[in-house]
Amino acid sequence: MTRVAPVAHDPDATRVDAPEKTTGTACYAADVVLPGMLHAKVLRSARAHARLLGIDVTLARQVPGVRAVVTGQEVRQAQVAPHGYFIKDRPALALDKVRFEGEIIAAVAADSEAAAVRALELIVVEYEDLAVVASIDAALDAAAPALFESPPQGHVPAYGAGASGRMQPAKNVCFEFDYTTGDAAAFSRCDHVFEDEFRFSRMQHFTLEPFVCVADAANGRFQVWSSTHTPFVLRRELARIFGMPENAVTVHVGLVGGSFGSKSSCRNEPVALLLSRLSGRPVRLCMTLEEGFRTSSQHGAVLRLKTGVMRDGRLVARSSEIYLDSGAYSDASPLVAEKAGYRIPGPYRWDFIETRCMCVMTNTTPAGAFRGFGASQATWASESQVDMIARRLGIDPFQMRARNLLQLGQPFVPGESGVDSDLLQGLQLVADEIGYGQPRLPGHGIGLAIGFKDGGGVNKPAQARVKVSANGDVFLHCATVEIGQGARTALSQVVATVLATPLRRVYCPPVDTDYAPFDQGTNASSGIAVMGQAVAQAASRLKDQVLAFAAEQLACAAHELLLDDWTVRRGDEVFPLAPLIVRQFGGTGFEFTADGFSKAARDHGAPLEAKSVFWEIGWAAAEVAVDRETGLVKVTRLVVSGDAGRVINTLACKGQDQGAAVMGLGQALFEGLAFDADGVLVNTDPLDYRVPLAEDLPASFLAITQEQGHGPGPFGSKGMGEGGMLPVASAIANAIEDAAGVRITALPLTPLRVLEALVAAGSKTQQPVDKDNWLVDNQADTTTTRERA
Amino acid sequence: MTRVAPVAHDPDATRVDAPEKTTGTACYAADVVLPGMLHAKVLRSARAHARLLGIDVTLARQVPGVRAVVTGQEVRQAQVAPHGYFIKDRPALALDKVRFEGEIIAAVAADSEAAAVRALELIVVEYEDLAVVASIDAALDAAAPALFESPPQGHVPAYGAGASGRMQPAKNVCFEFDYTTGDAAAFSRCDHVFEDEFRFSRMQHFTLEPFVCVADAANGRFQVWSSTHTPFVLRRELARIFGMPENAVTVHVGLVGGSFGSKSSCRNEPVALLLSRLSGRPVRLCMTLEEGFRTSSQHGAVLRLKTGVMRDGRLVARSSEIYLDSGAYSDASPLVAEKAGYRIPGPYRWDFIETRCMCVMTNTTPAGAFRGFGASQATWASESQVDMIARRLGIDPFQMRARNLLQLGQPFVPGESGVDSDLLQGLQLVADEIGYGQPRLPGHGIGLAIGFKDGGGVNKPAQARVKVSANGDVFLHCATVEIGQGARTALSQVVATVLATPLRRVYCPPVDTDYAPFDQGTNASSGIAVMGQAVAQAASRLKDQVLAFAAEQLACAAHELLLDDWTVRRGDEVFPLAPLIVRQFGGTGFEFTADGFSKAARDHGAPLEAKSVFWEIGWAAAEVAVDRETGLVKVTRLVVSGDAGRVINTLACKGQDQGAAVMGLGQALFEGLAFDADGVLVNTDPLDYRVPLAEDLPASFLAITQEQGHGPGPFGSKGMGEGGMLPVASAIANAIEDAAGVRITALPLTPLRVLEALVAAGSKTQQPVDKDNWLVDNQADTTTTRERA
Repeated sequence: MTRVAPVAHDPDATRVDAPEKTTGTACYAADVVLPGMLHAKVLRSARAHARLLGIDVTLARQVPGVRAVVTGQEVRQAQVAPHGYFIKDRPALALDKVRFEGEIIAAVAADSEAAAVRALELIVVEYEDLAVVASIDAALDAAAPALFESPPQGHVPAYGAGASGRMQPAKNVCFEFDYTTGDAAAFSRCDHVFEDEFRFSRMQHFTLEPFVCVADAANGRFQVWSSTHTPFVLRRELARIFGMPENAVTVHVGLVGGSFGSKSSCRNEPVALLLSRLSGRPVRLCMTLEEGFRTSSQHGAVLRLKTGVMRDGRLVARSSEIYLDSGAYSDASPLVAEKAGYRIPGPYRWDFIETRCMCVMTNTTPAGAFRGFGASQATWASESQVDMIARRLGIDPFQMRARNLLQLGQPFVPGESGVDSDLLQGLQLVADEIGYGQPRLPGHGIGLAIGFKDGGGVNKPAQARVKVSANGDVFLHCATVEIGQGARTALSQVVATVLATPLRRVYCPPVDTDYAPFDQGTNASSGIAVMGQAVAQAASRLKDQVLAFAAEQLACAAHELLLDDWTVRRGDEVFPLAPLIVRQFGGTGFEFTADGFSKAARDHGAPLEAKSVFWEIGWAAAEVAVDRETGLVKVTRLVVSGDAGRVINTLACKGQDQGAAVMGLGQALFEGLAFDADGVLVNTDPLDYRVPLAEDLPASFLAITQEQGHGPGPFGSKGMGEGGMLPVASAIANAIEDAAGVRITALPLTPLRVLEALVAAGSKTQQPVDKDNWLVDNQADTTTTRERA
Repeated sequence: MTRVAPVAHDPDATRVDAPEKTTGTACYAADVVLPGMLHAKVLRSARAHARLLGIDVTLARQVPGVRAVVTGQEVRQAQVAPHGYFIKDRPALALDKVRFEGEIIAAVAADSEAAAVRALELIVVEYEDLAVVASIDAALDAAAPALFESPPQGHVPAYGAGASGRMQPAKNVCFEFDYTTGDAAAFSRCDHVFEDEFRFSRMQHFTLEPFVCVADAANGRFQVWSSTHTPFVLRRELARIFGMPENAVTVHVGLVGGSFGSKSSCRNEPVALLLSRLSGRPVRLCMTLEEGFRTSSQHGAVLRLKTGVMRDGRLVARSSEIYLDSGAYSDASPLVAEKAGYRIPGPYRWDFIETRCMCVMTNTTPAGAFRGFGASQATWASESQVDMIARRLGIDPFQMRARNLLQLGQPFVPGESGVDSDLLQGLQLVADEIGYGQPRLPGHGIGLAIGFKDGGGVNKPAQARVKVSANGDVFLHCATVEIGQGARTALSQVVATVLATPLRRVYCPPVDTDYAPFDQGTNASSGIAVMGQAVAQAASRLKDQVLAFAAEQLACAAHELLLDDWTVRRGDEVFPLAPLIVRQFGGTGFEFTADGFSKAARDHGAPLEAKSVFWEIGWAAAEVAVDRETGLVKVTRLVVSGDAGRVINTLACKGQDQGAAVMGLGQALFEGLAFDADGVLVNTDPLDYRVPLAEDLPASFLAITQEQGHGPGPFGSKGMGEGGMLPVASAIANAIEDAAGVRITALPLTPLRVLEALVAAGSKTQQPVDKDNWLVDNQADTTTTRERA
């Protein structure tokens, strides 16, 4: 209808936050200083499971500079309700018992951090030890103690066709997700059925920026500056647990220094608010890296897959049982369980899918959202097993995948939206890049894998607004949080392109929940695919408004006009907009404003009540060299690729794929929280908890962003940032088998594990080997494989 | 169409800002503290008119704690353009010359105010004195020096029918407004033509809160916390003079502690920003009360009215010449001139109006917006003269007014909107209340007057937004500034009533120009009549949205539903909205949002290009006792009344009428800036500059808020707050003549002036007095009256 000047979208634009970040002036929550602000430190439980018999804070209160001390007693007095994503099970501070080592049991606000630390040292805690439930296996043991004697309240997400969820289905299981689709008799038609068990280790998000908030409870209102990336969810939860109206809680978010899922919903904000309310002063609560390890983590998992195939490699049926280690509090576990369970089919066609996924409570760090969100666990198991089956059947793993991949446009499962990438095209790309099928050096092996997840969140609404000053300076209002992923740059680029104005003219102010349009949160790679649509709609409506206005001023039809850098063009005539606006609205000005909205439509026929917004896919090809003496795996080449649909910002997309792949590398080779038998977390700093260093990067490391053009976001774009992580671990495990003939089914792929497998396999090779042998019994990995009839 | 539960509007609601104001937690710009914030003080010119030959800041820079020193040199280096409402004539700091005593010539930012003050004392300024232009008469003298050798640039407001404006029409005259309407031959038909001259003294706004700002120029952006009530105008002006985009300047406004017009547009913000940019630190610049006197003032005026009447008292024609003392910089002078000129007809019918109003530049404190905005000057002259004419013609002043008043609905002048109050009804009300026409004590007199102004601003656009959380907590987004007038309370009440929700559920966050919808500024009594319409529209649209949503959810028609405190009712059924919203949008929520807009439509047939939004009228009746020994005037009774159309908040309306009347009382009896022959302001503190004290209030003081119901604002409301001030001075002057037979035509009505008039009148009474004598020659007041023909 109305036209916009053909100002080409510029994917090579510099990040809008580059100047502040490179000059050190960027403002993170950690940088917020309020007048009279106190500093808080917390006392953490030394026990993983114990009753709290008493906490004596008398001496702590007497330390000079101490302004407030809180324990569970103050939580109870102030009637602060427990918080939680779905199940409201986590008190602001431990009440009668502690459920994991590191749980907060007291907090002090003082004039300085030093005074607060001194005070903490004087707090005396009396524990009565309880048996510790330190693992999934222990938690499911019939004799295990229950973490919660009476189940906390929560609500179950409503499901449509095929899927269902239950809260507290069994002791120490807080949620169970079940999903079945297709023909249950399919297994009986299979030539082979394989059962394998996989173990998924547990990472910590390891963000550069710590968990931090500044809370001010003065004046009957709450002002919170937080490193959260779900400001509206945090606002709602704080309002709920403190019994305040939502418009008495303002959440401010500037820049966030990395999250990978960790900084969602409520973290330590209730503690800071309690201290602020008691002291009458603003309170800053900034965690250390070590404390971050005791705040949130990924879900460890045990996954049992039973997969039925035809002898030609066609995948037919899959039944899965997934146990997620949720730690001591439920957090996002129900949603992670739903996603892990739902995504277990991977990018393949099946006749039957049956899935059961349980959240198991243990006396360990609570697990929450983590980049990949259930898909990491599912992909690790599924892509390992597909590869194992291919090798067992003597089928080339590439061919095995190729013959089973979903086609472009084919629904993931019945009722779902169609796949919006050509999966084979991506697989071929990474295979070609790594030289799949070509001769390789001795001791080297190549593995492939595909990670596959629905993106954009469940039924997630996003609102955005654009306003433009009389001079053409653009404000983008949206609550998508800049976590480093470049969302604000990309969304600003969308506005600039739609309005045909230079990117430098678009400004996106920090999030303020009082003013910013509502957004469910910056997660599930939703920035461009969900918020991007809302932003593009707002900009497009604004453009229409402006052209309609100009048409009225110029007494012509809007379709005769072209918007171009805050002028309108009619043929060769150029009319700057500012004078037209002043003519109509006076010298004091006016601002055009328009809203945009985006949300997957409810669809009761879809398994999760709404069709997925888009599909996020990561393809990987890894080449490894396995040192048979030490078990050391060296990734010599790594090719990862995601499909951006259309690239909004080249460097941002590349950065996402690279960063995700490196995180996948860490998961594959190094990372994993280690709890001792007492539930004490033993590796909580960069020396003990190994993350990939620059020297760990493969000598050849390639991240290729595809632009297949089928995304629902602006210009055909779709979400990035998680896909690249998903396939890395399984591609490496697959490469290890290719190189060394051993299959490791537990992460991380440490030298010890590989060595044990090599030793075990070596002892086997001394025995006669059946040429057709697909039976592997790797005790180290507790994997059992058997052929069905 | 859609219905709302009949929740009655509650005019007795408590102010929404009452808790924070009564507990001392309310946040004004003076309360803003930023980390690392410096404190600034300024050096002011000791001369009223001089060339600056040199400013030596060497020693000042060496004072410990001093972080930045700026003078005109830094203004020039940074290429900061001069600012101004229309004419851009005022540099951030004096450049080559100073034009009034107290003009800022240097500023220092230091760790403490004390260090800044010490530094100021070490600055050496070399002046070359120029002849001082200290008054309107002096400025218009042919031999007077020009304040500006080359006229600064500006723009003329565009006028439609009849009116015109010219920038710099003559030396020391920066703007001239001319307006003519009706039959120019009307004067020749008059029985009498009277010419009188009136002098209007010059008040300072005398706000409790000083001029204050905190400026932060870090990070390539400007953040300004200011006591301004025109945040968007300030933003635009700061962006323009510093050459920044408007979206790189954020203006934050919390509560403002009184303005009366003084805190509009640019004040000291450019100085603070310059200091911040140079020091790299936030800078707080807080003026003292004394400095406020050198920052802004009211326009003193000389008004010459030539008024033709029929012998029966019918007003026929008026020609006026108005000279406003604009001080050294133009500020809002052109608009004040336009309003003073335009409003000179008062609330009467005329056959012919001819007006000429000039802004005269003098070496005195710049004059800007002031409560009444030109109408104070016009009313003083017009309502004095109407009374004088009545007495000269032997007509009762009440009757004289009554027979000439505009009728309800009659256009003020041709092309204008109709008067929206019954003028006679209001006059009768105050006359009845004071007992007009009844016997009075000896030495006592009664005077009446009517103040009349167009309200709502010229062509002023206002935008508003309402958003509501899933739980029904309401956010009102509007940039109307709470100056103490109760605007936020009133606007929140409008939202609450439209949405049928309790007032406590409505929250209006502080103004932030990045987010807040555009507004031209909180002035011209526009809060309820202009912004109120935008707010009501936004709330009404939101209500429609919510009902349409609920209707869809409940599968019925919207008109079957009633909105009631975040539930919808259908007959006897009640449906809470929160669960319906969660059902549709998921547990993470959603916010309904709607926009509203209000602006007088452009109308090229209207003299000022748009019809006035509403008419603000103040009726007053004063009883005075004049002490013939001392000239002391005691106001024994004062009745003022405004017409609120419909009262939104009873106490706020009453407070406005009372406060305005007291300010009028100050203008009438005490207040007036005094400049000596060298242009030095000699009364700049509460001891020398007399404002009304509690003991000055009339023993009987009545403010009556009428509700005539004809306003354009929500529920029939219209603007309040200026009308009550307008008629007070002339009512008192009229009462003095009634009491003592002398006419004072210059403000304030000091004992000395009254005594001189009594003496002069006394000497006259020794001569034969013509019974019909209407000739007064009061030299003290330089009033001349002559009869035509």
